[in-house]
Amino acid sequence: MTSSVPEQGSTIAIVGVGLIGGSIAAALRRRHAAVRIVGIGRNAARLEQAQQAGLIDVAATSPAAAGDAALVAICTPVDRIVEDARDIARCLRPGALITDAGSVKGRICSELQHDLPEGVTFVGSHPLAGSEKNGWEHSDAELFEGRVCVVTPASSTQPDALQRVEEFWRTLGMRIVRMSPEEHDRALAITSHVPHVAAAALAAQLTDALRELAATGFRDTTRIAAGDPELWAAILLANADSVTAGIDRVMEQMAAFRTAIESGDEPGLRRLLDVARERRNQL
Amino acid sequence: MTSSVPEQGSTIAIVGVGLIGGSIAAALRRRHAAVRIVGIGRNAARLEQAQQAGLIDVAATSPAAAGDAALVAICTPVDRIVEDARDIARCLRPGALITDAGSVKGRICSELQHDLPEGVTFVGSHPLAGSEKNGWEHSDAELFEGRVCVVTPASSTQPDALQRVEEFWRTLGMRIVRMSPEEHDRALAITSHVPHVAAAALAAQLTDALRELAATGFRDTTRIAAGDPELWAAILLANADSVTAGIDRVMEQMAAFRTAIESGDEPGLRRLLDVARERRNQL
Repeated sequence: MTSSVPEQGSTIAIVGVGLIGGSIAAALRRRHAAVRIVGIGRNAARLEQAQQAGLIDVAATSPAAAGDAALVAICTPVDRIVEDARDIARCLRPGALITDAGSVKGRICSELQHDLPEGVTFVGSHPLAGSEKNGWEHSDAELFEGRVCVVTPASSTQPDALQRVEEFWRTLGMRIVRMSPEEHDRALAITSHVPHVAAAALAAQLTDALRELAATGFRDTTRIAAGDPELWAAILLANADSVTAGIDRVMEQMAAFRTAIESGDEPGLRRLLDVARERRNQL
Repeated sequence: MTSSVPEQGSTIAIVGVGLIGGSIAAALRRRHAAVRIVGIGRNAARLEQAQQAGLIDVAATSPAAAGDAALVAICTPVDRIVEDARDIARCLRPGALITDAGSVKGRICSELQHDLPEGVTFVGSHPLAGSEKNGWEHSDAELFEGRVCVVTPASSTQPDALQRVEEFWRTLGMRIVRMSPEEHDRALAITSHVPHVAAAALAAQLTDALRELAATGFRDTTRIAAGDPELWAAILLANADSVTAGIDRVMEQMAAFRTAIESGDEPGLRRLLDVARERRNQL
C-alpha cells in the first residue's frame, strides 16, 4: 500500500462548501484532524461563516487558494463541475488529484480525461449520500459512514490515482463500488433520478384539500421531491437519455397496473405487487 | 355530551386481529383499561396467542362471541368487510354500532346502509395509520396517536351514532375528518393508492445489479411497495375508478417531465420541480 490518503499535514481543497462539501470537511475533521482544509466557493460571506464555525481552515473565492492541495473534491452542481475542475486544475502542482461528487458522470468524466495540466489527474466519484437539505449548516460528519461511493475511472486512469481517490472516500467511512461512467448513469437513472421524477409527479397532485389525508406513506414516497429544483434540473438534464428511458419503463409498469385494475384482473395485479414487494424486500 | 365511548365495563369486539385490529386493542388497553375486548377471527391458534399475550380478553372464531358488544370494529381486508359486518350484525343487540377500518369506503358504505338488523347501525371509518408490517405482533398502542381518522357517514346516518363512532376513534388519540364515502375514495386514490402503484412500479425496476446503488431516496420512495400484495390488490380493485384516473394524472405529469428533459427545457423542468417541492413542503 502507498501512504494513507490524505497524508498527515497535507492540504485538501473542497470546491463548493454546501451539504456534501461541508460534510466531507466535517468527516475529515473527525477522522483525520491533521489535514488542512481549504474551502473554495462563490459566496465569501458564507465561506467565512463556515471558517468561523471551524469547518474549514481557509475560506477563498479564488482557485489559487488550492495551490498546495494534494486532492481537490469538486462538490458543486453537476452543470458546474467541469468548469470548476478546469479552473482549479490550472493552479495545482503535478501529482495532484481532482475528484468530484456529481450525481451524473458520463459527460464530466469524458471531458475531464483530456486537456488537464500535465501531472494533474481527474477521477470521477459519486458518494451515494445526501439529504433534501442544503447548505453547510446541515453538514454531518457521519453522512458517508457505511454508504457506497461509486468511483468511475476512465480506461486511461492510472491505477495509483484511482487507488488514492478510493482511499480518500474510504477514509470518510465509505465502501467503494467501481464502474464505468456510462454504467453509473444508467444505474442511477433507475435508483435515483427516475424515482425523483415519480416522487415529484405524485407530490404535484397534493392540493390543499388533500393535504390532511396524506399519511406516512405519501410522506415517504414524496420526501425526495423536496430536493432543490435547481440541482435536480441539472441532474435530470445531464442524464437525459437514461432518465427518459427509465421514465418509459416505469410508465409501462404503471400502465400494466392500470390495465390489471381496470379489467379486475386480481391474479395479474397480485403478480405485479408480488414482484415489487420481493424486489423491495431484498434491500 | 352523551356518555363516553366506550363506556366503562362495556364490550368492544374487533373482527380481524392483525396490525390494525391489534393496535386498536392495544390502544384501548392503554387508554381505557376497563373495557372487555373480544377478538374474532378465522385462525383460532393465532387468536389464542393474542389472548395469551394479553391483547384481547376473549378469542373466538364465531361472530356470536360479539353478542354483548356495544361497538364492533371490522378490521379485515376491504373485500371481506361487508360480509363480516353482516355476519356479526345478526348477533348484536339493538343500539350496537359497527364501524370498520377499510381503506376504500364507497361500496362498503352503500351496501351496509340497508338490510342490517333493526337497531344496528354501520358507520364507515378509515383510520389513516398503518405500516407495511402485518400481524398483531406488530400492534402499537400509539399507532393512532395524533393521526387522522376519516369517518364517512351516509345521508341517513343518525347524528348520535356518528358522534359515538367519532368519539371511539378520538379515544384512541385520533383527529376526525368527516367526508362522504365518494369524496374519501377520490382523495385516498391520490394520497395513498396511486402512490402505492408508483412505488411498486419503481421497486420492480430494482434488478440484482442495481441493489447496492439504491440509497435512502430509493428506499423511502419504495417503502410502501413492501406492503401485503393481497391486501393491496383488494384495495386497488375496490377503488378502481379513482385509482385508474389518478394513475392517468400521475403519468401525464411524468410525461411532462419527460418532454422537458428530452427537449432540454431547463425553465420548464424547474417549474415542474418547483411545484412539486412547494406542495411537498406544505406537508
